[in-house]
Amino acid sequence: MRESELIERLESLFQSSSPRVIRGIGDDAAVVRGAGYAVVSVDAMVDGVHFRGSQLSPGEIGHRALAGALSDLAAMGSSPGEAYLVLGLPHGSDRDDTLAIAEAVQQLAVRHGVAVLGGDVTASPCLTVSVTVIGWVADPGMVVGRDGARPGDRIAVTGSLGAAGAGLALIDASVPADELADEVRAALRERYARPEPRLAEGQLLAELGASSMIDLSDGLAHDAAELARRSEARIELSLAALPLAAGVEQVAARLGADPRVFAATAGDDYELCVSVPGAAADRLQAAWPTASAELSWIGTVVEGRPGLVFSDAEGELTGYEHSF
Amino acid sequence: MRESELIERLESLFQSSSPRVIRGIGDDAAVVRGAGYAVVSVDAMVDGVHFRGSQLSPGEIGHRALAGALSDLAAMGSSPGEAYLVLGLPHGSDRDDTLAIAEAVQQLAVRHGVAVLGGDVTASPCLTVSVTVIGWVADPGMVVGRDGARPGDRIAVTGSLGAAGAGLALIDASVPADELADEVRAALRERYARPEPRLAEGQLLAELGASSMIDLSDGLAHDAAELARRSEARIELSLAALPLAAGVEQVAARLGADPRVFAATAGDDYELCVSVPGAAADRLQAAWPTASAELSWIGTVVEGRPGLVFSDAEGELTGYEHSF
Repeated sequence: MRESELIERLESLFQSSSPRVIRGIGDDAAVVRGAGYAVVSVDAMVDGVHFRGSQLSPGEIGHRALAGALSDLAAMGSSPGEAYLVLGLPHGSDRDDTLAIAEAVQQLAVRHGVAVLGGDVTASPCLTVSVTVIGWVADPGMVVGRDGARPGDRIAVTGSLGAAGAGLALIDASVPADELADEVRAALRERYARPEPRLAEGQLLAELGASSMIDLSDGLAHDAAELARRSEARIELSLAALPLAAGVEQVAARLGADPRVFAATAGDDYELCVSVPGAAADRLQAAWPTASAELSWIGTVVEGRPGLVFSDAEGELTGYEHSF
Repeated sequence: MRESELIERLESLFQSSSPRVIRGIGDDAAVVRGAGYAVVSVDAMVDGVHFRGSQLSPGEIGHRALAGALSDLAAMGSSPGEAYLVLGLPHGSDRDDTLAIAEAVQQLAVRHGVAVLGGDVTASPCLTVSVTVIGWVADPGMVVGRDGARPGDRIAVTGSLGAAGAGLALIDASVPADELADEVRAALRERYARPEPRLAEGQLLAELGASSMIDLSDGLAHDAAELARRSEARIELSLAALPLAAGVEQVAARLGADPRVFAATAGDDYELCVSVPGAAADRLQAAWPTASAELSWIGTVVEGRPGLVFSDAEGELTGYEHSF
């Protein structure tokens, strides 16, 4: 397929009916009616660095790239608006694979009310999917940064941890899947291959008084340490309090790892880690909808030297080593 | 240099004092006070595809990537606001080279009042610089698309053509430089390596009544055809009217090419091609500041089948073949 043909196919795929879009794909730039403050993030995923093309379907690669970018908006408490896609395609890329990447991007986008308004398609030595996302907030005071954690705050995470890391271990075949029920294995793979950005939860946490927030892409031990660093605060977490995803215990055992250390250090879960002022925590928990991903309270912000400690860990935790 | 160190260096390099920036680098996303309508474009430049890393300095690579993206905003008549940078760095990238790329981006950004607010740094098999730019316009009616050319309009280009293509031919050493004066040679190289986005000219053309506009990245023959296609209009240009950059005639002669055909088909000039309603053209020319890049009137929009023709060309023009 010639580049112009591909671009035509992408143009017709990424039609948007958003009333805020003045000009979409097909011009030098897109034009969108702004709505207060723009919240902007860019996330690049490169074959061999952030995933292995041989291990994921084209649709999973596309989904994962947009999900990773949207997760950054979730972590600011922002609703999503538009996305712009850069596809770097190796020589000889299959046209159907390329369209499958784009279709998965569009499906996830539509589900979250995101308009995909353009981007760039280029040759590249390896498959690269880079996504710019823009969200809009009416009040910049409602945006939650990484720097607002204060002593007395309580720390929570959404959902469950370790699933994506366990899913990757299964995909890598470094762990035989025989001991896991089919549906558990499939769920772990799905958490790695098609993570769901916690957009609704992020906005709710912002509304209900979160003081700082970050999404878990590099693993809790890394990302909570970043909250501590940016907030100049001391965060104390408990490994025992971490919510493990189903199957993580078995996978970690086969890797010879402590399951809670594994869950704290494996990346790609795209859950949210949040600090909440002590006075607001009970109110937040009471107001938390049962339909949302569960909240687990895993620690507190204490007085003392800035940094992250696990009160019940032996030694310092470092990132779980991915196989690539 | 570890990634965290590099990111710290980039954070301190890309400090912005713009009062519109609420949160810059260092969070999950940047937060910017919107100003009307957002004009957004993404442009990726990949080593071996859009340039050869061995032929350009790191600073030239950085400059060129941001210039290419800003040129898209120029072609909409938008003023620039913010930029977001994705750096894909091959294994073993030199830290000083990486910082030189970023410094050149920041220099060009500052010169045009652009705040660089973040992005992403990732490993990649080859050097990739991808830039998202956002501009802001108060009135979406002032944005100039590719689709507004109408019969009776006159067509103009800014500046001069063929310079970047000639510069590349000199860099490729497919043309010996001996016949060219040093300053002509240096100017041609500069036009390829450090193009200047026509931001002021683009805004002025929008204010003075341009009906459609595009920037010349793939060459006039390609890009004016795109104006014709999007406008469903027939554009008739004259090769004889094209403004050739100094030295293009000699370089084209050494390549065995007609200099005007060369200028019409070589890419990367980043000049603007614009249509202007006939009634507004004289007024626009009269109001055109002498300090701006010169305008050359090179053709008209006529009735008839949509497409681009050169009235004085032998046969159809196709793109000048780059050596990569």
